[in-house]
Amino acid sequence: MFEQQNILDLKAPYLVYFGDVQGRGYAKTGLGLIKWRPNLCAGQLRLPDCTIDGGIRDMPIAEAVATGVKSLVIGVAPSGGEIPSTWGDDLVHAAQAGLDVVSGMHVKLKDIPNLENAAKESGAKLIDVRCPPAILPIGTGAPRSGMRLLAVGTDCAVGKKYTALSIEREMRRRGWEVDFRATGQTGIMIAGRGIPIDSVVADFLSGAAEAISPSAAADHWDIIEGQGALAHPSYAGVSLGLLHGSQPDALVLCHEANRDIMLGTENKEPFKIQSLLETMELNLKHARRVNPQSRFVGFSVNTSAIPEGERKAVLAHYARETGLPTVDPIIDGASAIVDQIAKEFGPCRAA
Amino acid sequence: MFEQQNILDLKAPYLVYFGDVQGRGYAKTGLGLIKWRPNLCAGQLRLPDCTIDGGIRDMPIAEAVATGVKSLVIGVAPSGGEIPSTWGDDLVHAAQAGLDVVSGMHVKLKDIPNLENAAKESGAKLIDVRCPPAILPIGTGAPRSGMRLLAVGTDCAVGKKYTALSIEREMRRRGWEVDFRATGQTGIMIAGRGIPIDSVVADFLSGAAEAISPSAAADHWDIIEGQGALAHPSYAGVSLGLLHGSQPDALVLCHEANRDIMLGTENKEPFKIQSLLETMELNLKHARRVNPQSRFVGFSVNTSAIPEGERKAVLAHYARETGLPTVDPIIDGASAIVDQIAKEFGPCRAA
Repeated sequence: MFEQQNILDLKAPYLVYFGDVQGRGYAKTGLGLIKWRPNLCAGQLRLPDCTIDGGIRDMPIAEAVATGVKSLVIGVAPSGGEIPSTWGDDLVHAAQAGLDVVSGMHVKLKDIPNLENAAKESGAKLIDVRCPPAILPIGTGAPRSGMRLLAVGTDCAVGKKYTALSIEREMRRRGWEVDFRATGQTGIMIAGRGIPIDSVVADFLSGAAEAISPSAAADHWDIIEGQGALAHPSYAGVSLGLLHGSQPDALVLCHEANRDIMLGTENKEPFKIQSLLETMELNLKHARRVNPQSRFVGFSVNTSAIPEGERKAVLAHYARETGLPTVDPIIDGASAIVDQIAKEFGPCRAA
Repeated sequence: MFEQQNILDLKAPYLVYFGDVQGRGYAKTGLGLIKWRPNLCAGQLRLPDCTIDGGIRDMPIAEAVATGVKSLVIGVAPSGGEIPSTWGDDLVHAAQAGLDVVSGMHVKLKDIPNLENAAKESGAKLIDVRCPPAILPIGTGAPRSGMRLLAVGTDCAVGKKYTALSIEREMRRRGWEVDFRATGQTGIMIAGRGIPIDSVVADFLSGAAEAISPSAAADHWDIIEGQGALAHPSYAGVSLGLLHGSQPDALVLCHEANRDIMLGTENKEPFKIQSLLETMELNLKHARRVNPQSRFVGFSVNTSAIPEGERKAVLAHYARETGLPTVDPIIDGASAIVDQIAKEFGPCRAA
């Protein structure tokens, strides 16, 4: 029997670790964590060379422990993949002081010299968020109570996580009962729990997705982070297992304006992004297999590649094409999408 | 870089092990191996209590070694899952004598007492065919040379493996260049190689499927064992990754007559089997994403639940519904399907 406690679970508040990182691209995880969960981030820890500032208080390990911090979260990817020894020292000190150490890096925490022993002695946990639970259920397709929204995409890396978090934030602002449900490493750090769905054994794909958004109160919304795309030749299996297991009532389509070729296929065999209507139709067909009332409630477009002056016209064009409330959540927020959800699914407890 | 030698590879000829098995249902793997690869099965080894006879020569381990046997293949599942100690003794003796030991059981070979040491001393290999290679590629969708057929189904366990093997046998009979490509444990034993596709990490699903049927001569056919069903709420992700990675030119639909509810969903939330045309349309849509010329060439129906007198009428009805050459391969063979393949894809080297 699968127990919910098998799902990765992080203890807040966090000390966000930036090491000696030099570029914002390498610090996306930590910056995202601070953006979406400022209340959980008590402070940041940086080496003298670090050029990134998350805009929160610098805090040495001893002070973090004294103020009740529970976990050091590595908010940065080492350039080149190797962990510099200066980082290793900080991580060992944190574990010695009893802080859980949380990582989304490819290198496993237990492979960092002395870290495993330090954690054993203090009782701290080492949590690699790329590792799924050892025990997962087979999917059943049985309906669960509560409402669910899944962000799906025309491609990988088109803003599904950002979209889901924007919708969660807007629903919470309105006083709705809502949880962001994470399926990737950065999302798991932000949510404090979740399963890295692309790392589970294939047989358990939809079962893992079912475990990610368990039964809830009838008007509670789970906003689920999507992965990949049903038409992506590398990752479609992950996307379909996640779609089936999520049993979404509502779908939000995510897309990057001006992207024509699917990510990762540019060099070997370029795959064109499918049309918006084809993408919607294919997602709906599979979603309705597990939830007949499934429907699209919004379109989220990353317009960063569009000149500022053309943005509105592009969004209006997309809105006509899809018939959906269309926003760039970075600029517009997700209010129009949540309005549509309220319209489609009726008044929520606090709406 | 993924190397083809990472794929599980078994050494023939085989000694088929039946232990003390009492029922044919528990001996399906060994009986299937003897049925489909009689030339590779030098003999069988049975304990005195065994009531199953594979119809080949009984052969003690010493004789097997003397006649050039390379692997002992466990052709039976222990009832209850536990390995009786009498079996363990036989397996240890085989490994001591230098035979590779091949298993599709859930219990790992290294967990059988003394077996790992025996294998180490003799240099024999212990091969669990449920374990995928440690290193797999990400799928690219790049086309490969050669022709491919994938057996897809309306459900799990509708005869996809049997169908694929029947087609392989018929093509070989006609002198075509052909290989059966295995994606499940029994299939891997029969093929002598393959990847258990439901056990790979989800991110590598289509990459594993691409590795299973590598580039080949232009008129060579790979006949690929399908898994699951695109509409099955537990396993659809596996089916889609396998479909994308297989890039099939030809699809054969497999179905069990009179089955209405999807296997494994009967008790919790029954899922109706989708209509034949819906199943075909959904498979074609995904297949054409990676191979625009993909099409159905036949319909394989397991008619074991149909009274003998009604069989012909049922098959005729199915043929009208699908427009496809329709056979029960157990009774009719796969000749009608291979005829259709020859018609659709032109003359093969030896056709």
